[in-house]
Amino acid sequence: MKDLKKMNENMIEGRNAVLEALRSGKPVDKLYVLDGCQDGPVRSIVREAKKHDTILHFVEKERLSQLSETGKHQGVIAYVASYEYAEVEDMLALAKEKGEDPFLILLDNIEDPHNLGAIIRTANLAGAHGVIIPKRRAVGLTATVAKTSAGAINYTPVAKVTNLAKTMEELKKQGLWFVCADMGGVSMYDLNLTGPIGLVIGNEGEGVSRLIKEKCDFIAGIPMKGDIDSLNASVAAGVLAYEIVRQRLQ
Amino acid sequence: MKDLKKMNENMIEGRNAVLEALRSGKPVDKLYVLDGCQDGPVRSIVREAKKHDTILHFVEKERLSQLSETGKHQGVIAYVASYEYAEVEDMLALAKEKGEDPFLILLDNIEDPHNLGAIIRTANLAGAHGVIIPKRRAVGLTATVAKTSAGAINYTPVAKVTNLAKTMEELKKQGLWFVCADMGGVSMYDLNLTGPIGLVIGNEGEGVSRLIKEKCDFIAGIPMKGDIDSLNASVAAGVLAYEIVRQRLQ
Repeated sequence: MKDLKKMNENMIEGRNAVLEALRSGKPVDKLYVLDGCQDGPVRSIVREAKKHDTILHFVEKERLSQLSETGKHQGVIAYVASYEYAEVEDMLALAKEKGEDPFLILLDNIEDPHNLGAIIRTANLAGAHGVIIPKRRAVGLTATVAKTSAGAINYTPVAKVTNLAKTMEELKKQGLWFVCADMGGVSMYDLNLTGPIGLVIGNEGEGVSRLIKEKCDFIAGIPMKGDIDSLNASVAAGVLAYEIVRQRLQ
Repeated sequence: MKDLKKMNENMIEGRNAVLEALRSGKPVDKLYVLDGCQDGPVRSIVREAKKHDTILHFVEKERLSQLSETGKHQGVIAYVASYEYAEVEDMLALAKEKGEDPFLILLDNIEDPHNLGAIIRTANLAGAHGVIIPKRRAVGLTATVAKTSAGAINYTPVAKVTNLAKTMEELKKQGLWFVCADMGGVSMYDLNLTGPIGLVIGNEGEGVSRLIKEKCDFIAGIPMKGDIDSLNASVAAGVLAYEIVRQRLQ
């Protein structure tokens, strides 16, 4: 309940408030707009949102009423990120500054804010230089994420990219190679995980998507002795990140 | 909200229902009783609860009304565990049956049901033979825990003990030794974590308590390069459990 309330602190309702947020450059994670609404002000908001590459959801009136806290959404509800996003270049610069091989964590559609927060926390402690998340179908930097990150969000840069596969291509040109966790991969203990690396963690339910998996240089398996399928996504990220730490320390 | 509702499915209100639950041997995690109430039926419930070693909370009427879903608590509200608890002996028997050195995970007051669920999931996949939780000041096997465990709760035994330190003493007699995670410990990569082992994970905020730490044979440190203090408890459990897995595999 507490988290739910905190999340709502990031919700902006009503035409003027939403338009102002967009124009001032606030990082809007998601924008819900009444489907079929052709009013001038709403069209201005949609235009502005597209300019900022904001994710738009056109929804029924019932959905908006459900989301609304004030009951006065006027056809638009925006979710604003609590924290500023960084650029991927900042992360590479950070690694260079520290004289370390880049170590990035890429999240292929993590949906649970607790998982994202815990992964940012892990990234900070494992010495990763940043976390990259996709713009679509993934949770952004909400207040819940910030809280679950235990403050790590203030230190570890998080970048949001439009196309994760394209970002991987660009990073490959800069010397990074990529490993993702998946069943049937080579045991992570048998892989050389040193050097400039991008660790890819898949979605909670579906794992790493096909397209992203194809871009990975290696598929790492976490040895599993049990009866169920997979670890919690943030635990899997922690186990893999620390195997990288272990190999880097040797 | 969904989880909250699910948890309430485990709530039993009213004198007859609570007394019946206790008498039938259902695993009651917690019992809330109206403070100062000396009615015969309520005294019977308290007597029965004490027989079963149930945790009792004597609370004001306002607290009961707050907890109540039906508004008809009649001075007693019980929380029933969703799943059956196992005995520590079952875990040792399981290890023996598999011809493996016992590997147990002990939780020193984990409070967040998502963490408990994720740790049971990790225990299952890392091949631990069971998870031991204390009776007091810790979350029990609620529906949220079951859900977060992704089914692992059906395979990995969980025992609830009155005195964690005493349980450790008894397990030491059976050849187990104990390692806990704490700042300032020896790097886990430099410790020999093979053999019959109990891994102790501390509370989310306070870490491992002094008494429990004193019972541990080793304090293991997870190397930390970042700006914040500690990993999420379930991530720390995962990282340490998998260091044990790695060393056992070699």
